Amino acid sequence: MTTETPDRHRVVIVGAGFGGMAAAQALMGQGVDVTIVDQRNHHLFQPLLYQVATAGLSPADIAGPIRTILKRDRHTRVFLGAVEDVDLDAKVVRLVNGARVPFDSLVVATGAAQSYFGNDHWRPFAPGVKTLDDATRVRRTILLTMEEAETGRQQSLESRREFLTFVVVGGGPTGVEMAGAMAELTRHAAEMDFHYISSRCVRVMLVHAGDRLLPSFPPSLGGKAMQSLEKLGVEVRLNARVTDITPFAVHIGEEEIPTTTVVWAAGVMASPAAAWLRVPADPQGRVRVGADLRAPGRDDVFVIGDTAAVTDAAGKVAPGVAPAAKQQGQYAARAILARSRGRRAPAPFRYRDYGNLATIGRQRAVADFGWLRVSGFPAWLLWCLAHIYFLVGFRNRFVVGANWFWNYLTFERGARLITGGDGALGTS
Amino acid sequence: MTTETPDRHRVVIVGAGFGGMAAAQALMGQGVDVTIVDQRNHHLFQPLLYQVATAGLSPADIAGPIRTILKRDRHTRVFLGAVEDVDLDAKVVRLVNGARVPFDSLVVATGAAQSYFGNDHWRPFAPGVKTLDDATRVRRTILLTMEEAETGRQQSLESRREFLTFVVVGGGPTGVEMAGAMAELTRHAAEMDFHYISSRCVRVMLVHAGDRLLPSFPPSLGGKAMQSLEKLGVEVRLNARVTDITPFAVHIGEEEIPTTTVVWAAGVMASPAAAWLRVPADPQGRVRVGADLRAPGRDDVFVIGDTAAVTDAAGKVAPGVAPAAKQQGQYAARAILARSRGRRAPAPFRYRDYGNLATIGRQRAVADFGWLRVSGFPAWLLWCLAHIYFLVGFRNRFVVGANWFWNYLTFERGARLITGGDGALGTS
Repeated sequence: MTTETPDRHRVVIVGAGFGGMAAAQALMGQGVDVTIVDQRNHHLFQPLLYQVATAGLSPADIAGPIRTILKRDRHTRVFLGAVEDVDLDAKVVRLVNGARVPFDSLVVATGAAQSYFGNDHWRPFAPGVKTLDDATRVRRTILLTMEEAETGRQQSLESRREFLTFVVVGGGPTGVEMAGAMAELTRHAAEMDFHYISSRCVRVMLVHAGDRLLPSFPPSLGGKAMQSLEKLGVEVRLNARVTDITPFAVHIGEEEIPTTTVVWAAGVMASPAAAWLRVPADPQGRVRVGADLRAPGRDDVFVIGDTAAVTDAAGKVAPGVAPAAKQQGQYAARAILARSRGRRAPAPFRYRDYGNLATIGRQRAVADFGWLRVSGFPAWLLWCLAHIYFLVGFRNRFVVGANWFWNYLTFERGARLITGGDGALGTS
Repeated sequence: MTTETPDRHRVVIVGAGFGGMAAAQALMGQGVDVTIVDQRNHHLFQPLLYQVATAGLSPADIAGPIRTILKRDRHTRVFLGAVEDVDLDAKVVRLVNGARVPFDSLVVATGAAQSYFGNDHWRPFAPGVKTLDDATRVRRTILLTMEEAETGRQQSLESRREFLTFVVVGGGPTGVEMAGAMAELTRHAAEMDFHYISSRCVRVMLVHAGDRLLPSFPPSLGGKAMQSLEKLGVEVRLNARVTDITPFAVHIGEEEIPTTTVVWAAGVMASPAAAWLRVPADPQGRVRVGADLRAPGRDDVFVIGDTAAVTDAAGKVAPGVAPAAKQQGQYAARAILARSRGRRAPAPFRYRDYGNLATIGRQRAVADFGWLRVSGFPAWLLWCLAHIYFLVGFRNRFVVGANWFWNYLTFERGARLITGGDGALGTS
């Protein structure tokens, strides 16, 4: 049980993603009371969600209960709940269930959701991959489609190929990684495990509006990624803008691509934090903050991670990646400790870019460290090490490492389960 | 892709549980065509489902895709689908999606579902644990209830204890194992990971209609199980018959126990195979078969596992446990091979009882091998070895073994994720 000491500085952190968890961990044992609020009970290693969606890893491999990660500190509380609003005058966060959580300092780190650029009616037919439930839903759709093709009545190769068309929209790291893993899963499984379908029946397509993949990487690596994807059998369409998505097709300009499986990885929209804080949002819904990471006009409210558009001390806008969110969380923690101790605020935030990594399938990746660009197998090894290293908690690292090694040796995908929904073709 | 040779004997197996999988594996490479039909895409190690429900293991740890397990044989097909009916004259299984699967020999191994003894309106408030989705639902309910208590407004110890009452109905192996694991999960987590609740707030109750636990074990072991459960803090109620279950309470006779979390482990009802086969069912819905395991009046239809009430060559009714189903599956395979080769049927089926095991919590179990009865830590070690040994496929064995060892060392439960539903308190 906790002791709440009335005169301790009370910090409320909303959101247990990379930013919020980094702030909470940096505040542990520092003489402040911390309450972290999230809609889910687990911290999620989002960069590996696509591996859950393509049956390479299990949900528990990439997620850990927030309570377990933070339990060492008796002055840290965890609340499961959704934020209704923030009362800035009373300095209270109001939750949907009616609870009121008072703060002296507030960190808003609620992340972002998929954006359909004003076409929200596409959402049901083209789910994004942002949560564990999203990922298991995509996994179910892919596996069920293959099972349906096996028992189904698509007699010609052409009609099977149409039925087994999988489309990923968006050529950033998420889309590239998803398309590569999806091609490996579907083509390999079709070849090895099914009788009536083969890899020739399967079509995986990556649709990208820009003129090269991975726009946040140097152009040469975008080209390498494209080559690697094509080797895996992915059909890459550049300069292709999606004009409509229906339950049965994706439209690219005038062209109609029949498909029932579309994954959206094309854009994000920040959570409604700007509305809670009564400040204007940028077009992606983010709160614009300066190098002190504070909401306009407030000394006590910090906005970090994908919820914010941070212009750092060097005048650059920090990218929407996990390392940026972590660094901002640590900075916010330092600034809050300075506040609580009546000291001077730390030097303005400066984002340190340690590099950029994306993986394509089982043995290929691209890496950009500024001074070094790598692609192919060495980049893939780097990617494996980096991701295992950054996974929270020894157990996950160990299980994920063992899993990857096993998949690498055997090509098997241990998490290939259809769960949720009704789980059965017969009633779908 | 498969070759279907028209003159090969065609075997259809409905159900990929222990019985169906044992039959399929025994028929592999024996010159017959096998089609296995299941509503789900995975074989499930049901005896460990309670560990998924109590967050000790992940779904993928105890389930493997049927295709992966059977893929070595090109004459074995896997169909995802639900059976609508069996046309015994045409010798065709009809699936709900309209597909028709012809057979020369048929094995019905569709298992059993929960039975509420005519009180099917209790089902929504007292789910059983028969599928992965059942197990993750129970896990979600337990974890959400604890999270709600942490942020909730039950101010007194009494009201928290009422809110945090978990009831298991049924004192067979499933109920005993579930209650033990549930007590460990909830009491330990309450003590270690929560601030506003402690183990004194948690009440786990096992309600059993009979006068001793584990009726299928010798009386002394039932007593040991009861002692072990009580040491874990489980309140065991014997001779207690549930008279009603509502969303907010379990009624035992006149007594009303307020609770929102009830798990049903009290009875099973066989799947509707008897109706498909136009034969009478016993009160548990099972098809009565003799020591040849064949449906009454049919030479070509075998009924095995929990779908059947098998009277074996010794005149005993085989119990509804995994080893019995496996032995029956192997027997059915032998009998089918004899049929397909025009040979004499094998000697009548005789169930071989290798013993009975049940585990209670982290370090205790009871085991009965007839000639040897063990309880406590040695029985628990035996239980671990036996279950790891029988898990299908090396990968699962390895992951489950590592997981248990880790849990044993740390008391941590790696799979403590709330997924599905809305996952958030705020909107529930």
